[in-house]
Amino acid sequence: MIIVMKAGTPSVEIERVTEEVCRYEIIPEICQGQHKAVIGLVGETAEIDTRQVQNISPFIEQVIRVKKPFKRASLEFRYGEHSEVAVPTPNGVITFGQNHPLVVVAGPCSVENEEMIVETAHVVKAAGAQFLRGGAYKPRTSPYAFQGHGESALDLLAKAKEATGLGIITEVMDAADLDKIVEVADVVQIGARNMQNFSLLKKVGAIGKAVLLKRGLSATIEDWLMSAEYILAAGNPNVILCERGIRTFDKQYTRNTLDISAIPVLRSLTHLPIMIDPSHATGKSEFVQPMVMASIAAGADSLMIEVHPNPAKALSDGPQSLTLEGFEELMQEMAPLGKFFGRWSK
Amino acid sequence: MIIVMKAGTPSVEIERVTEEVCRYEIIPEICQGQHKAVIGLVGETAEIDTRQVQNISPFIEQVIRVKKPFKRASLEFRYGEHSEVAVPTPNGVITFGQNHPLVVVAGPCSVENEEMIVETAHVVKAAGAQFLRGGAYKPRTSPYAFQGHGESALDLLAKAKEATGLGIITEVMDAADLDKIVEVADVVQIGARNMQNFSLLKKVGAIGKAVLLKRGLSATIEDWLMSAEYILAAGNPNVILCERGIRTFDKQYTRNTLDISAIPVLRSLTHLPIMIDPSHATGKSEFVQPMVMASIAAGADSLMIEVHPNPAKALSDGPQSLTLEGFEELMQEMAPLGKFFGRWSK
Amino acid sequence: MIIVMKAGTPSVEIERVTEEVCRYEIIPEICQGQHKAVIGLVGETAEIDTRQVQNISPFIEQVIRVKKPFKRASLEFRYGEHSEVAVPTPNGVITFGQNHPLVVVAGPCSVENEEMIVETAHVVKAAGAQFLRGGAYKPRTSPYAFQGHGESALDLLAKAKEATGLGIITEVMDAADLDKIVEVADVVQIGARNMQNFSLLKKVGAIGKAVLLKRGLSATIEDWLMSAEYILAAGNPNVILCERGIRTFDKQYTRNTLDISAIPVLRSLTHLPIMIDPSHATGKSEFVQPMVMASIAAGADSLMIEVHPNPAKALSDGPQSLTLEGFEELMQEMAPLGKFFGRWSK
Amino acid sequence: MIIVMKAGTPSVEIERVTEEVCRYEIIPEICQGQHKAVIGLVGETAEIDTRQVQNISPFIEQVIRVKKPFKRASLEFRYGEHSEVAVPTPNGVITFGQNHPLVVVAGPCSVENEEMIVETAHVVKAAGAQFLRGGAYKPRTSPYAFQGHGESALDLLAKAKEATGLGIITEVMDAADLDKIVEVADVVQIGARNMQNFSLLKKVGAIGKAVLLKRGLSATIEDWLMSAEYILAAGNPNVILCERGIRTFDKQYTRNTLDISAIPVLRSLTHLPIMIDPSHATGKSEFVQPMVMASIAAGADSLMIEVHPNPAKALSDGPQSLTLEGFEELMQEMAPLGKFFGRWSK
Repeated sequence: MIIVMKAGTPSVEIERVTEEVCRYEIIPEICQGQHKAVIGLVGETAEIDTRQVQNISPFIEQVIRVKKPFKRASLEFRYGEHSEVAVPTPNGVITFGQNHPLVVVAGPCSVENEEMIVETAHVVKAAGAQFLRGGAYKPRTSPYAFQGHGESALDLLAKAKEATGLGIITEVMDAADLDKIVEVADVVQIGARNMQNFSLLKKVGAIGKAVLLKRGLSATIEDWLMSAEYILAAGNPNVILCERGIRTFDKQYTRNTLDISAIPVLRSLTHLPIMIDPSHATGKSEFVQPMVMASIAAGADSLMIEVHPNPAKALSDGPQSLTLEGFEELMQEMAPLGKFFGRWSK
Repeated sequence: MIIVMKAGTPSVEIERVTEEVCRYEIIPEICQGQHKAVIGLVGETAEIDTRQVQNISPFIEQVIRVKKPFKRASLEFRYGEHSEVAVPTPNGVITFGQNHPLVVVAGPCSVENEEMIVETAHVVKAAGAQFLRGGAYKPRTSPYAFQGHGESALDLLAKAKEATGLGIITEVMDAADLDKIVEVADVVQIGARNMQNFSLLKKVGAIGKAVLLKRGLSATIEDWLMSAEYILAAGNPNVILCERGIRTFDKQYTRNTLDISAIPVLRSLTHLPIMIDPSHATGKSEFVQPMVMASIAAGADSLMIEVHPNPAKALSDGPQSLTLEGFEELMQEMAPLGKFFGRWSK
Repeated sequence: MIIVMKAGTPSVEIERVTEEVCRYEIIPEICQGQHKAVIGLVGETAEIDTRQVQNISPFIEQVIRVKKPFKRASLEFRYGEHSEVAVPTPNGVITFGQNHPLVVVAGPCSVENEEMIVETAHVVKAAGAQFLRGGAYKPRTSPYAFQGHGESALDLLAKAKEATGLGIITEVMDAADLDKIVEVADVVQIGARNMQNFSLLKKVGAIGKAVLLKRGLSATIEDWLMSAEYILAAGNPNVILCERGIRTFDKQYTRNTLDISAIPVLRSLTHLPIMIDPSHATGKSEFVQPMVMASIAAGADSLMIEVHPNPAKALSDGPQSLTLEGFEELMQEMAPLGKFFGRWSK
Repeated sequence: MIIVMKAGTPSVEIERVTEEVCRYEIIPEICQGQHKAVIGLVGETAEIDTRQVQNISPFIEQVIRVKKPFKRASLEFRYGEHSEVAVPTPNGVITFGQNHPLVVVAGPCSVENEEMIVETAHVVKAAGAQFLRGGAYKPRTSPYAFQGHGESALDLLAKAKEATGLGIITEVMDAADLDKIVEVADVVQIGARNMQNFSLLKKVGAIGKAVLLKRGLSATIEDWLMSAEYILAAGNPNVILCERGIRTFDKQYTRNTLDISAIPVLRSLTHLPIMIDPSHATGKSEFVQPMVMASIAAGADSLMIEVHPNPAKALSDGPQSLTLEGFEELMQEMAPLGKFFGRWSK
């Protein structure tokens, strides 16, 4: 349920209403929009009489029930206003959101050694990326496959950050590693296979860093938003959704099927920013460029692209990684399209 | 197997080689590329010694085996040269292909009456469409649902064609109707549910009109190209592939999942032109515009868009149809993007 | 909508009611159950007032609306009474249905030559099968694959029938072949790829032979029953449903995923008999036996099993075919389980 | 790679060989079969020359490479011998495995209060179940749904165990709860949504209790066995696989699609015991009985069935739960079929 306050309502009155509604079994949340404030109520709202709430103050414009099962994640909860996720990085605050330039995240699947990660960071920064991605802890199908260098990889990410000022995005697989990860990471990633690891979602909901929530391999849009809701409900409003391909009946030519229609669908359902990962989706570097272009045209707020100095020798996911030169070329192709849509920085 | 002839080979020599190879149990097919001629051999080629073929003429540059199960449809069969499908319409020849402007096909799901189809034709033509689509025979899940007006709808399409000069695309469901359909249609559509109706594929392979082959609901890329192969093998080289959404585990917010990555995948596998139908894919008119933009950015050669003067009262597929005004607006948004990619006429 | 007549209603009164309801825009259909007669009404029933119908006769027990989109195929349409499909064969009438012994259909994917089909027929008959299956017209993914021997294969099926008295089941792919097929076939099969070839469904709805309707590769239960409805609506009440595996995300160890839960689901929705084809579903002969056992235990009415004298040399689908000895062993294992469930003849 | 020792090899020689192979970068594992011992080698075996290994001892019968990506989980790794998982419970050791009676696990989705769990335990024990299932920590799609009573629910499970002597199976969602859970649980369950939570898999691989590994919603057979491999590789050989329905394109009449063919497929690939959960798979109590019968007929080693004293008032998953009476009836129907297949205790 949300309470839409009239434009120009004094803040003291908003607070009074917020206190008043606490007599119901709910938790109120104020969202100050551009013109109006909205108070979101989450909890046992089914029994609350909307007219009773309406009578609390003459400044209340409207009381509306949120019918979706996801509440805080729903667009209705913010009365149609899209949210922004602002992430401080050494190079300044980078903002993910519909009214901001495209944010480009690039880097290798996993952090392999200092030279490769620092070199990659320099190149992707020069090419225009704002974030460096790189796995320290890798979710691998096989226990015998390279599992990431763990803590020492975090140190290397810190060095790359220091060297370039880029923000860092890396995945958490185990809550026990979270403290170490947040020391380095600016955005903490929940991988596709952990999208419904509800314990972990609650824990990243309690940290002060933004969370990148990848869509599960066969997660419906609703499943995904419910997982975002876990993080929001735990107190962390800074969630970015990342589509990375879904599992369908055809795996012969692409690893997964990139669901680009998720972009407008999410836009109509949620206020959260949307990232696309064409590298994991297609699994082949030659299909990354057209999928990047399509994602921009469909309205993505951010892109995550795998880049490796030597894909043929990558310890993981080589076939889907662009070379450093490949990434530079891609950025040169993206820039005019980003500008065309008014989504390019500078 | 293909025989690549050297640039500048005299045509008499190409013919001689073509005749020579007939001693094998194969059917040769000459494809005259921009620089070189390629002779495609289809049949029992597994046993043929490539060196023996090579020795037929000093003008033979190379003899290459096509490893894909689809032969004529494969890009290799044309030695990497993409094909064009040129369709004569009253307004002139319209060409579908990678090096041509985007072709826009628009119109209602089904032809309902003269007024609606002629009005729609006038509007979509004025807005820039080259083809009018409209169903006379409708494949409906229920036997009790409106099945299309059949033959009389074909007459109405003929009237709309006469009034506007637009090319006509309409679906064939039954080979018995094919003669009547080709009198009016410039492109004959095979619907998703008939993609593996092999009898029908053979029959449209024997007509002189271009064929639009929609992807089946759960057809793999390979299944789809094998169905195209049926048409090509039956002698009709003018096949256009149309992606219209696949069936996945999530149907809550979109009718199907539009597989936009099919565009670059097909481009790497086949020489045939590629159309996208975002209306059937998403099933909701509000998602058509972003999916159109994404399709253009990913490199589609053509778009099929459902348009109806009064979607709320449409006899079929109303929720996914744009209004006439909606279509005009869409075309105004498409034009700059089409120009950006150098794919817009004039 | 159905009209349930009281037990013991004189038939003249049932007829009077049937005539009376014709004043509505509907087609009535009498179904004489064991205790009560039910009159099914199909057509524009939404506007009919059930009380008005109730008043037609004091012998009317109840007037009930069928809410499912499939009407004639629904269990409600027969007021919960399951139907039987009785097929005359030279060896006598074989009945498919819940209260009848399991019907076993066996034979090769395609009819290859006289010797193999007659030998197979003799062996499967001796082992206890009631029907011989064998493809004359084969739906193959590739136009270059063996397409079946067509008309001459029908002659061979006729010989096998004459030699053994077995009923014949064979597939129709093209309505143009239907006349020839019904001369030999006792049950006409619609293949998975033609499940939504609505033109063909209407045509087999007009013949006097039973129809075996295979489930499409990604057909929902409702899609499937709607396709059955096409046949029933065209006047042919003798439809048998055949589950043959659906397309899922995993094809590594089985060709398709056999949906055994379709058996109880269909039983709760429709009165039509249910067949299972474990051979196409699994695609591997070693998995046929356990899937046969599971199907019997789940309540299947019939089984279709691929058998070939020499699977290694089969022209199609060898890996999923049992040898003749394999089939004999399978029947010996099936018999005690069939008896356990009271579903074995003699 | 495995080393098959000749029948009758002295154990001192087996140990000597085991020590010898430690010079390679591998970990050896002795599996004493009924007739022969097999030494499994996991690690960098690609470079090891099998002839060199063969020469270590004249008692070596054969040295074979395991080609599957899952090693310890593969049937080859035990040279075709199926494993048993023996679980001590107050009522005695219960063994899961192909050559043992069916093990029946029953109980509510979640532990709601003492009365209901103890009552349920008494009834399911009396009806013949060996294990009580009940969720203390519940993975729920919504953060606002009942999440299980946690630690206090574990206490209630302990009481039910004490009252009936039944073994306890309950799910772990968070490694932090593992210590408390293993105090009560005899088998620790990994839920479908955590099947690829590799951190958690490693942790349950380090405990001394058996692990029930549910298949992920869209996990391939290979993904699933690779997750089992994580547990085995971490040192816990007692893994039971549980199929609980996969996600397909049709959710209208069943919650998921129960993949019964997974039973014979797994049997051919792995030595691990196989459980089926028809309750979560179908999501409807009326479909549980036929799916139980089918699972037994297909060769399942164990069944997990949801039972609740009052399904209509269950805090979770009511529609798929049997009543206590329903479970008693089911057991009476299962017993004769279990006996038919020689898989029923006593």
